[in-house]
Amino acid sequence: MGKDGAVALGESQSPANESGSAAMRMAETLLRILPIALCVAALVIMLKDSETNEYGSLTYSDLGAFRYLVHASGVCAGYSLLSAVVAAVPRPSSMLGAWAFFLLDQLLTYVILAAGAISTEVLYLAYKGDTSITWSQTCGSFGGFCRKATASIAITFVVTLCYAGLSLISSYRLFSKYEAPVAYTNKGIEVATFQA
Amino acid sequence: MGKDGAVALGESQSPANESGSAAMRMAETLLRILPIALCVAALVIMLKDSETNEYGSLTYSDLGAFRYLVHASGVCAGYSLLSAVVAAVPRPSSMLGAWAFFLLDQLLTYVILAAGAISTEVLYLAYKGDTSITWSQTCGSFGGFCRKATASIAITFVVTLCYAGLSLISSYRLFSKYEAPVAYTNKGIEVATFQA
Repeated sequence: MGKDGAVALGESQSPANESGSAAMRMAETLLRILPIALCVAALVIMLKDSETNEYGSLTYSDLGAFRYLVHASGVCAGYSLLSAVVAAVPRPSSMLGAWAFFLLDQLLTYVILAAGAISTEVLYLAYKGDTSITWSQTCGSFGGFCRKATASIAITFVVTLCYAGLSLISSYRLFSKYEAPVAYTNKGIEVATFQA
Repeated sequence: MGKDGAVALGESQSPANESGSAAMRMAETLLRILPIALCVAALVIMLKDSETNEYGSLTYSDLGAFRYLVHASGVCAGYSLLSAVVAAVPRPSSMLGAWAFFLLDQLLTYVILAAGAISTEVLYLAYKGDTSITWSQTCGSFGGFCRKATASIAITFVVTLCYAGLSLISSYRLFSKYEAPVAYTNKGIEVATFQA
């Protein structure tokens, strides 16, 4: 009876868990593959972003924030590719792997969010200027430059959303391996009830 | 035998889980209370940050990034206070509450990280300037202003670290309530083995 109950417990959760797991694997794979293309797009648009006219010339590398965006996009594209490959290989459950995915996903989310945020701020200053500290607005003279930068930053924010979703999935993967703290659940008691 | 085993299973995990849970509750309480003081400090320093000299006058509100930092710090201080009170009240385990903490902690982490990042970028521009787009460096004339802003931003990054820790704890709290996906663990089989 005890053994049967335990086996039933294990099996009763399988069908729902398996379909949920399959859907989540699909979502995870998508969220890992999509940023590869998006990051490369953001990177290429920013790399090719330079304009020369009668006012002078301006390239992305004149602005520290845009240089950082290029680097962050490159790192993200590389990490997305690597993690998509690693995640696609079927392998036994590993606590270390789950922790690595969790921490790296979180870190990359912060990196790409910061890249998007500071680039947005610089672009805002380039559009509006700031007369109180004599920063002139730049986009009047370099409209094409600013439009390309806007496109690149918009893509970066889509990547940020993908990574926020990935963070959610990888923290589920990691922490669902742990038992809930005793004070917060009665999982153990549920098992006992089921057995009795 | 089945029942004894199940009860033993439930009880065998209690002592470790309970001390771990107590330590985590302590850490969570600290990480919720600490940002209240830090956010108020960052907010007050930034609010009082203005300098008038022979070059003119400059206050935090002249810069959009610093205004955003003030708002973000205010929201964070309020949320930290509220969430510390809610988390301190002993209550039955609730999935909805765990999801709310998880999502709000994540969101506030992103908000305060973005505030720190864009303020750092503006401060960097104020220190270094950017000759290619004729933005002059400002901190030569307004040294005191820039030093106060630096202090406020440094505190904001400490708050960001606190929130990153909180995100970790609240995602553990939430997702440890879920069963691990079948493909990734053999929790069910472990139970069966224990019973047999």
